[in-house]
Amino acid sequence: MALSETSLIERYFRSGGAQRPDVALGIGDDAAILSPPAGSDLIATTDTLVAGVHFLSGAPPAAIGHRALAVNLSDLAAMGARPAWALLALTLPEAREAWLAEFAAGLGALAREHRVALVGGDTTRGPLCVTVQLLGFAPPGRALRRGGARAGDVLFVSGSPGDAAAGLALEQQRLTVPAAARDYLRERFLLPSPRVALGERLRDYASACIDVSDGLLGDAGKLAQASAVAVEICFEELPISEELEAALGDEGARQLALSGGDDYELCFAVAPARVPELLAQLPPERWGYTRIGALLPGSGARVVRGGTVMEFSHSGYQHFS
Amino acid sequence: MALSETSLIERYFRSGGAQRPDVALGIGDDAAILSPPAGSDLIATTDTLVAGVHFLSGAPPAAIGHRALAVNLSDLAAMGARPAWALLALTLPEAREAWLAEFAAGLGALAREHRVALVGGDTTRGPLCVTVQLLGFAPPGRALRRGGARAGDVLFVSGSPGDAAAGLALEQQRLTVPAAARDYLRERFLLPSPRVALGERLRDYASACIDVSDGLLGDAGKLAQASAVAVEICFEELPISEELEAALGDEGARQLALSGGDDYELCFAVAPARVPELLAQLPPERWGYTRIGALLPGSGARVVRGGTVMEFSHSGYQHFS
Repeated sequence: MALSETSLIERYFRSGGAQRPDVALGIGDDAAILSPPAGSDLIATTDTLVAGVHFLSGAPPAAIGHRALAVNLSDLAAMGARPAWALLALTLPEAREAWLAEFAAGLGALAREHRVALVGGDTTRGPLCVTVQLLGFAPPGRALRRGGARAGDVLFVSGSPGDAAAGLALEQQRLTVPAAARDYLRERFLLPSPRVALGERLRDYASACIDVSDGLLGDAGKLAQASAVAVEICFEELPISEELEAALGDEGARQLALSGGDDYELCFAVAPARVPELLAQLPPERWGYTRIGALLPGSGARVVRGGTVMEFSHSGYQHFS
Repeated sequence: MALSETSLIERYFRSGGAQRPDVALGIGDDAAILSPPAGSDLIATTDTLVAGVHFLSGAPPAAIGHRALAVNLSDLAAMGARPAWALLALTLPEAREAWLAEFAAGLGALAREHRVALVGGDTTRGPLCVTVQLLGFAPPGRALRRGGARAGDVLFVSGSPGDAAAGLALEQQRLTVPAAARDYLRERFLLPSPRVALGERLRDYASACIDVSDGLLGDAGKLAQASAVAVEICFEELPISEELEAALGDEGARQLALSGGDDYELCFAVAPARVPELLAQLPPERWGYTRIGALLPGSGARVVRGGTVMEFSHSGYQHFS
């Protein structure tokens, strides 16, 4: 049944991640033995990638490995947690060594970048499917949540949303863009950079935080709903990369920034009184985030343009479908 | 992309497991917030079940849910750990409510039995595949490992191995057995009972422990290899259920007890000086385990019958193929 799981996992993953002194026993036994830091909360998440759904079947194996960890890192970033330990459940139609080596290299490089140890896993035969579980820490009671924002709080987003959705469209050959923009957008889809360091710093400022994976407007709406407030995003304030604008024009770029998926950025709320210190301690130009709106009394998510509420349908993809 | 994952997970799983005071935030945010007990080691494992590989495609959904957690509970049992928190990654071809409700009921019932809270998850669309990550605790430095047995230690196994493999053969209609044995063997395959309570108690006695999932002889061999010793199992001492003997006869039952998979029993070693106290404190007839052999100098796994080493091929299944 197993695809020689012990040897596979050991061969390709054991030494791939960071080496950490808080791992008493890693891959190779029935379970891992870990030593959480005294007095911390443990933050735990899991995300699955399915071939043909979350990545294209011909995607570079290193990008699949990177992505499998990145989407989980992004969840921990949204909690303001510091990642520590990952477990990998890998279902594969066949054990192809070259594929596995590249997959492990992509996952391992990102793991080392964030000091994540790969402490366990399971390899099974079946349709290609990758599940990573990621564990991390936050000081007790200090992890960020989606709920917690109040009416009047300021809304921010990191990075330049929409890039990844354009990169996906490029991969799917649904979009053609100027050559200068192509590599950037493609990489923004293939190799997302979860905002782990920003998330940790935001523990001191944010009233609520969510990771942007299903489209900024929808995810901001989830934050607002969990906080029992409404959210308003200012169309003109959306941070648009030069490359996305070159690809889609200003209007199309802004539409996609609101609706496109796979950004793995952070959307967060900050009480007005805390904003000056946020801006001073974490300069936006260095930390890469932008004020895009506000939380308000009421419910729902809306986009305002030129002072009036936009009719917005989740139609960003139509620009190149 | 997501299969309305938030609502699905929330609807079917949020209240399904145990309620625990150490869960600060469960299902519904980007990650769970958990409070590990001070000074404990954290024990972490993950196992995946794939349709057609780990369960038959027509298996009762409740049995699939039970099994997805049981195989992970068995890993923690082998570490002598107390389970606490589970995350579920569920990939489904379609969201059928009746299927989900039964699956969640099976998983939830076993979770409550072992006081496990379901704290997070991810639901995606794709070929049916279930990954559970399970977290638990052990006193610092006290978790059991595969390595640690010494030459001279006594070998034990819990339960009656081979039953589950016969139950699988029944499900696959590769075996016919007397009616009196059928339900028992079928249930032993469909609803394995991980030996969590026994594993926790064994922390005080065992020098090494492994869960028996791939066949007793092979798994005992892994324990021996990790401990850098040899293992010898006595054919006549194998604990055989009445039902397995009724199904296969004495010879066939013993062969299957050595080679059959899916037992989810514990195989463990105990230093000779500790055996009397083990037998006194954990009476075998109450705790359900049997002395089956010994660890010896050298390497490898062998079976002894009537004082001589058996030629044993992993051929148990041939009895009904």
